[in-house]
Amino acid sequence: MIVTVVGVGLIGGSLAISLKEKGLANWIIGVDQQENNLKKAQELHIIDEGAGLKDAMQRSKLIILAIPVDALLKILPDILDNATPDHVIMDVGSTKEKILQLVAGHPKRGRFVAAHPMAGTEYSGPEAAVRNLFLQKTMVLCDVKNSDEDALEVVEQIVDKLQMRLVYMNAEEHDLHTAYVSHISHITSFALALTVLEKEKEQGRIFELASGGFESTVRLAKSSPDMWVPIFKHNRSNVLDVLDEHIHQLQQMKTLLEEEDYEAFYKLIQKSNKIKKILK
Amino acid sequence: MIVTVVGVGLIGGSLAISLKEKGLANWIIGVDQQENNLKKAQELHIIDEGAGLKDAMQRSKLIILAIPVDALLKILPDILDNATPDHVIMDVGSTKEKILQLVAGHPKRGRFVAAHPMAGTEYSGPEAAVRNLFLQKTMVLCDVKNSDEDALEVVEQIVDKLQMRLVYMNAEEHDLHTAYVSHISHITSFALALTVLEKEKEQGRIFELASGGFESTVRLAKSSPDMWVPIFKHNRSNVLDVLDEHIHQLQQMKTLLEEEDYEAFYKLIQKSNKIKKILK
Repeated sequence: MIVTVVGVGLIGGSLAISLKEKGLANWIIGVDQQENNLKKAQELHIIDEGAGLKDAMQRSKLIILAIPVDALLKILPDILDNATPDHVIMDVGSTKEKILQLVAGHPKRGRFVAAHPMAGTEYSGPEAAVRNLFLQKTMVLCDVKNSDEDALEVVEQIVDKLQMRLVYMNAEEHDLHTAYVSHISHITSFALALTVLEKEKEQGRIFELASGGFESTVRLAKSSPDMWVPIFKHNRSNVLDVLDEHIHQLQQMKTLLEEEDYEAFYKLIQKSNKIKKILK
Repeated sequence: MIVTVVGVGLIGGSLAISLKEKGLANWIIGVDQQENNLKKAQELHIIDEGAGLKDAMQRSKLIILAIPVDALLKILPDILDNATPDHVIMDVGSTKEKILQLVAGHPKRGRFVAAHPMAGTEYSGPEAAVRNLFLQKTMVLCDVKNSDEDALEVVEQIVDKLQMRLVYMNAEEHDLHTAYVSHISHITSFALALTVLEKEKEQGRIFELASGGFESTVRLAKSSPDMWVPIFKHNRSNVLDVLDEHIHQLQQMKTLLEEEDYEAFYKLIQKSNKIKKILK
């Protein structure tokens, strides 16, 4: 199968590597607005060639859209316009409601499969692409009833060969749950980095004292705004809702500390410890 | 050297393992209020024997106090009362001001070296003790001018043999900086776990969707309240100060999202990205 990957960054690049490795793709065409990314991706043998979108599409069976969600909204209708009944179009975006609303009435909606691999790192660009990024991770497929059966099968086969766990959701559920378990973690981490940078003017001290705990909590604050601002924008109301709850929880801890109610503080920590049962 | 480790949990146990391995201790006596911990620690070959504190002290050169900071405040004065000029007493507590104020006027203050290894995991108890926990990590020694030279040398030799980075600070600086780079991370993580547990009633969905990002941000929420409540209590004003700043940062992000000011939001994330430069 000839595959076009639009956006040869962390996710697109890692998918390209995996598809080749698993024998699902024998030729990968990269499409990217940044000429430099295409060059690097080719040097790193992530793609076989770089091309323009139209040309790449004409020669490919599967088109993977691995670009920020705002860019996706802009190009997906055009791509569907140009799709043939043989094309499979798949995205990997972190929000789903807006994109699926946008193409809901499109005559070729069936060629599109909305996918979200729950995997990533805090790095970006083709150099960030890695093997096995998706191994044992979850792939969410959204509103699959609106995808053509044969298009869905192509994507499900990828999920299977990449040894991912498959979860089906509707777009609304997806955006709600990802706000809870992914988007809020990023907000927290960005805010924590800002907090420490603000308080800790002696940056050398951060370096000296930061232990594994700090590093893991703040790691996501290295993530790219190009990817994350559109996610927060497109999942705004869910993110605001969970952010409200998070601020409330922090304020509750603050109040208990101000009042020196250490017994209640202890119970709160015990309650938070329940996360152990869920995350092994 | 015969070493007594009071509190054979994550830190005490890991230190015991390292001291034996590096040839710094040839016999380790464990002291623990929980009989069960002593039994486990002996089964795991972390300690050579369990004993009562007085007996253990009489036979040891070095006494390591690896217990929560509130318990430390209770027993340190007694331990110093019973110390001989040959004893070296070292703690590993996460807050320093209160403990050093407490023993400031003690006639045997010089035998005490206040230490804080910036290392740990979210687990506790003797089963959590691991080899190489301290390798390449930072050891902070506080107010060393008040420790006897020979006592300090014993501890500095340990730091050296364990291949740790050595940093000297006064107690006030220590408590300020650890609030910024360690204590606030734990608060954030506890609050994030509470947030997600509150919002996400379908706990199976957390498990399905949680990716590496969520796990690393929430990992510290598995930490023990027995250890952490005393830390927050003893470093209350610094923790409140940085917690205020953190809530402020989150509120700022919330406001920008409410007002849909994505340009300012973008700049804020870019600013937080500066943490990259500090943490490799």
